[in-house]
Amino acid sequence: MNAWRGFKGDSWKNEVNVRDFIQENYTEYIGDDSFLEGPTENTLELWDMVMDLNKKEAQAGGVLDMDTDVISNITSHKAGYLDETKEKIVGFQTDKPFKRSLQPFGGIRVSETALEAYGYKVSDRVHEIFSKYRKTHNQGVFDAYTDEMKKARHSGIVTGLPDAYGRGRIIGDYRRVALYGVDYLIEDKKKQKQTTSKTMSEDNIRLREELSDQLRALKELKELGNIYGFDISQPASNATEAIQWTYLGYLAAVKEQNGAAMSLGRTATFLDVYIERDLQEGTLTEKEAQELIDHFIMKLRLVKFARTPEYNELFSGDPTWVTESLGGMSLTGKSLVTKSTFRYLNTLENLGTSPEPNLTVLWSTQLPENFKRFCAKMSILSSSIQYENDDIMRIEHGDDYAIACCVSSMKLGKEMQFFGARANLAKCLLYAINGGMDEKMKEQIGPEYERITSEYLDFEEVKDKFEAMMEWLAELYVNTLNIIHYMHDKYAYESLQMSLHDREVKRYFATGIAGLSVVADSLSAIKYAKVKAIRDEDGYVVDYVTEGDYPKYGNNDDRADDLAVYVINSFMEKIRSHEVYRNGVPTQSILTITSNVVYGKKTGNTPDGRRQGEPFAPGANPMHKRDTSGALASLSSVAKIPFKNAEDGISNTFSIIPNALGKDSKVFAGELDLDDLDIDINIDDIIIDDCTNMACAVPTLHEGIDE
Amino acid sequence: MNAWRGFKGDSWKNEVNVRDFIQENYTEYIGDDSFLEGPTENTLELWDMVMDLNKKEAQAGGVLDMDTDVISNITSHKAGYLDETKEKIVGFQTDKPFKRSLQPFGGIRVSETALEAYGYKVSDRVHEIFSKYRKTHNQGVFDAYTDEMKKARHSGIVTGLPDAYGRGRIIGDYRRVALYGVDYLIEDKKKQKQTTSKTMSEDNIRLREELSDQLRALKELKELGNIYGFDISQPASNATEAIQWTYLGYLAAVKEQNGAAMSLGRTATFLDVYIERDLQEGTLTEKEAQELIDHFIMKLRLVKFARTPEYNELFSGDPTWVTESLGGMSLTGKSLVTKSTFRYLNTLENLGTSPEPNLTVLWSTQLPENFKRFCAKMSILSSSIQYENDDIMRIEHGDDYAIACCVSSMKLGKEMQFFGARANLAKCLLYAINGGMDEKMKEQIGPEYERITSEYLDFEEVKDKFEAMMEWLAELYVNTLNIIHYMHDKYAYESLQMSLHDREVKRYFATGIAGLSVVADSLSAIKYAKVKAIRDEDGYVVDYVTEGDYPKYGNNDDRADDLAVYVINSFMEKIRSHEVYRNGVPTQSILTITSNVVYGKKTGNTPDGRRQGEPFAPGANPMHKRDTSGALASLSSVAKIPFKNAEDGISNTFSIIPNALGKDSKVFAGELDLDDLDIDINIDDIIIDDCTNMACAVPTLHEGIDE
Repeated sequence: MNAWRGFKGDSWKNEVNVRDFIQENYTEYIGDDSFLEGPTENTLELWDMVMDLNKKEAQAGGVLDMDTDVISNITSHKAGYLDETKEKIVGFQTDKPFKRSLQPFGGIRVSETALEAYGYKVSDRVHEIFSKYRKTHNQGVFDAYTDEMKKARHSGIVTGLPDAYGRGRIIGDYRRVALYGVDYLIEDKKKQKQTTSKTMSEDNIRLREELSDQLRALKELKELGNIYGFDISQPASNATEAIQWTYLGYLAAVKEQNGAAMSLGRTATFLDVYIERDLQEGTLTEKEAQELIDHFIMKLRLVKFARTPEYNELFSGDPTWVTESLGGMSLTGKSLVTKSTFRYLNTLENLGTSPEPNLTVLWSTQLPENFKRFCAKMSILSSSIQYENDDIMRIEHGDDYAIACCVSSMKLGKEMQFFGARANLAKCLLYAINGGMDEKMKEQIGPEYERITSEYLDFEEVKDKFEAMMEWLAELYVNTLNIIHYMHDKYAYESLQMSLHDREVKRYFATGIAGLSVVADSLSAIKYAKVKAIRDEDGYVVDYVTEGDYPKYGNNDDRADDLAVYVINSFMEKIRSHEVYRNGVPTQSILTITSNVVYGKKTGNTPDGRRQGEPFAPGANPMHKRDTSGALASLSSVAKIPFKNAEDGISNTFSIIPNALGKDSKVFAGELDLDDLDIDINIDDIIIDDCTNMACAVPTLHEGIDE
Repeated sequence: MNAWRGFKGDSWKNEVNVRDFIQENYTEYIGDDSFLEGPTENTLELWDMVMDLNKKEAQAGGVLDMDTDVISNITSHKAGYLDETKEKIVGFQTDKPFKRSLQPFGGIRVSETALEAYGYKVSDRVHEIFSKYRKTHNQGVFDAYTDEMKKARHSGIVTGLPDAYGRGRIIGDYRRVALYGVDYLIEDKKKQKQTTSKTMSEDNIRLREELSDQLRALKELKELGNIYGFDISQPASNATEAIQWTYLGYLAAVKEQNGAAMSLGRTATFLDVYIERDLQEGTLTEKEAQELIDHFIMKLRLVKFARTPEYNELFSGDPTWVTESLGGMSLTGKSLVTKSTFRYLNTLENLGTSPEPNLTVLWSTQLPENFKRFCAKMSILSSSIQYENDDIMRIEHGDDYAIACCVSSMKLGKEMQFFGARANLAKCLLYAINGGMDEKMKEQIGPEYERITSEYLDFEEVKDKFEAMMEWLAELYVNTLNIIHYMHDKYAYESLQMSLHDREVKRYFATGIAGLSVVADSLSAIKYAKVKAIRDEDGYVVDYVTEGDYPKYGNNDDRADDLAVYVINSFMEKIRSHEVYRNGVPTQSILTITSNVVYGKKTGNTPDGRRQGEPFAPGANPMHKRDTSGALASLSSVAKIPFKNAEDGISNTFSIIPNALGKDSKVFAGELDLDDLDIDINIDDIIIDDCTNMACAVPTLHEGIDE
């Protein structure tokens, strides 16, 4: 086949196996960044247009245009362009850039609210369809929720649940579109369907229906290609096509689904194979190669969804988490860094910094030194790179996984996640003290267990009651997620994304916690100092006075850090003790970068001295200003969190203060030389690779984009 | 409560328990039919209008009007009337009589075909909704069907599957609407939802969603009452309201669902309580009481659905099986016959004969003699009464069950059925002989087992291969039905009907067989005579020559009858050996009254000498003209079928030839006196009450309505 000319290996030809293709064909690059090219004229002009539209969008109050009657699906729109003559990679979610699509399958009311917030109105036709004939995911969920679940959701002890929009955190292996072409994938999917069990258990019936839905999605994907003038039934035959095919796969996904995190996967090294071949064949120059990547990345920066103000408040902005995972090591010992890995990061210079796509370096101590240095340089320049620990994740996921959203790792095309947002353990601790009474709403939300009546809190008593309340919460939380995922599969199934997966998929059942450091410090205060309970007229504790000092999480002090570890282990064990939907594998994340602000707002005074409404620390971070023993002590505390009980990831938002590096202005000026950095702190320490798959997003730009 | 004035008993007040209400309050009637009244002027005028519309419908080619854009649901239409000033009981499926509604949830293509057959066209809007946004039951089923299932369906070895329209065979307990009013039922349903398990297994999630759907349906039912000017939130306070409320419950069901059999239940004795109270209170006369029943029955005769020509061909007409079960014995030993039982049957005289509603007498030898005589008289007059054996069914179902369709018995509000159509065992026998090759299509449909190669068929060899082929067929059939019912629940759930059920419902998983007597006689021929196989050029058996005579099923000869029993027992055991959807209880029916013609068409020559294309005998009937030993011998053969392995019913279409009774003309003239009848044959013999729950529909009018 001409499309595969010059490619080595056989396994990947006989079965869908992108990893094998990459391993057989990629060219590791250990050189430096000197080969990189700047933007072309076209790129600059296109980007100017984007910047102009960006400004107009901001001026228009956050939205430039919205669909009100066209229901978004893979083939719902005609082709849209910025400037067709200049774009090397094309395709928008609707028929023009910056026009947000209408995706009511998750919930019609949330769609209507999102539109109304910007002065648009869903058409009567669409309203009627989705309120009378087509049940939405949201309606399904609320049909099954118990009163207790609704109350817990309202009080915020479980929160951020994906029950009105796409759950996201599923990555289609979009590279398959380029490597195989859609017809091959259709044939493969048909074979998968033909070879299911003949016994029609409910599981098998659902599987067979899903495979049919996937087949339809693949046919629509071909049609999406046609809409833009490409025959993607066949494999891509050069780099331009490979990028375009891959992007069309991704575009189909975001036309069908509006998950909070619609991540891209791990495309750079894969696409580099095509670019290398074109370069060798003399059909592409470095300038052109960079232009292709620039245009691809530009498209990814323009992924937009119609969101409600509440959504934007929770996530502090309008993020999409189009995460692309870069680098990492191959299982063979070589790194997976290619020139295209550099080219991707180079877009931060060519197009300027941006939180999207969420460029995430899979960090290993073994990565080529030149690449490490380039990462550090681009981090300093852009404050836009996320780092995660490949050395840890590779053990579980091999060398062809990617990150969905911030920290959720999954094998491409073989694993997916049921996204589960998080439980507020700080609130849970207060419920334990007050016998299930919500400290802010003054409403019985949790079970009416005996509350604590002593003036001074006794650690063992608090811990026992906290255990019982966590038990209640874990059960409620798992049951709530079971409903959400059952209904998501039923009413908003990700047929396109799943069509780019194998048939047998491992499903992570993700849970998460918020308020870790608040709980750890509160327990520490109760244990190591004296905490007096202040009660209101009804006898409920509304405040705490701490007498004496106590060890705080974030100072590499086992007394406090062990309490953090205990909370994580205990809650994870409780989560695991419940039956989960579709035999999912329960995992837990300690991940909030911005929503910790909202969680804090919803939570009363805590025994650690935190005042009502004050933000929690993000993710696994120590509370602000309490990690007083220096950066490494702080990081060491976080590093104690056992990965096996926080497999969905541990996020640590870590800002390097120039002073800590002994330099003042250069970091911000972007002039810091990597060698300067090395003087004070080893790059590998900054990246904390002996910890976990920790997200070290430098928050400057990423602030406000999380979950 | 005024509505319940004078009613005795308490249990039924504190819980939904219609049986208890009936037992506490009904008045058995053991008198004769002399109290009955003829039709009122209004009734006659209304019925003339119906007859006129009937004629016009026939002239118009079978359909007078059809909805093309309004999607039928409980509240989709404004009120419709024949003549509002004359109708005592009101309500039509659409906004006028004889206008057929559009019910695309089962399948959009089947809706379109049904309309196109009569020159109508489904609107683009509806087409778009049900092809792009709202998956139908039919689409769901075909998404999960295997190639093998599609082929088996095409060849007709499994047939009549409800995979494109409502499965029916579910009876809402419509009496609850009258007795309790909808608000009470809503409160009860809410309690049911509040008290489900807290563990969100998939089963429980589905249950909770269904309860929510049921709650919505009940609210819509109230709205349907409002549309016709009634507040049915409260209980009915007199007979008129009781009938109207009950009918509105039923009307809501047929607006939501278009099952092949949308049966009514067992309403006469229930409603009689209200009529008796009104009569005693002096607010109703017998004439008025009969008028109410006449108008109620008139409405039930006008239930119409949009059907495809194929559907009408299979069912030889346009039947609806609005089955009402009459009489039967109470567990206390009293009969459940009331004056209203008589009044219902009297409609056959007042309005003339009609196959609908399918008036079905639950026959017991203990029924009051006067009622028995009246039944016989009305049977002779109308040829429109179906009889079933209460003495057998009461053991399993108690005294508040009813018949859905022809023979499927279920406790009202407590049991339902997953309707399963049937498997063609005659074809299965041919597959056994030809190694899975379809004898008509010359296509490999069944598994390619070794075929029979001997010239003369050996009984043991045929039986072994038949066993193996039945094993294959039973598995395929159960799996196919599992898909159908999974998808029906998913895409066309009967929310209104199930809202009039308890939460814990026993679900019968109904299967059925066709061709019983063909198989029994074929096996008998092979065993007791010599059957020579005639093969085509490919070596497949295409015909059979029988040398010698053999015993035939239907002559009370155990040699043949035991083979029929063997087939039934063996297939049922095989059905039971597979996992069925939703823990259903597998049952089997031997039931075809008309579709036996279609099955015969699809089946080649059989070893019993039946020619290719010739109809099978209906249901459990012996083959036409082979039961040469007299009526009682024929009936005795049928009576050997074990009820436990044919629990969904055994139908025997039984025509009394006047000669058999020693009278010539009187039967047809309607002049036959019951005493004359008694001379020749005891009425209990005719009704065959020592058999099973056998449907003895006198076929004159019911011909062409079955399943």
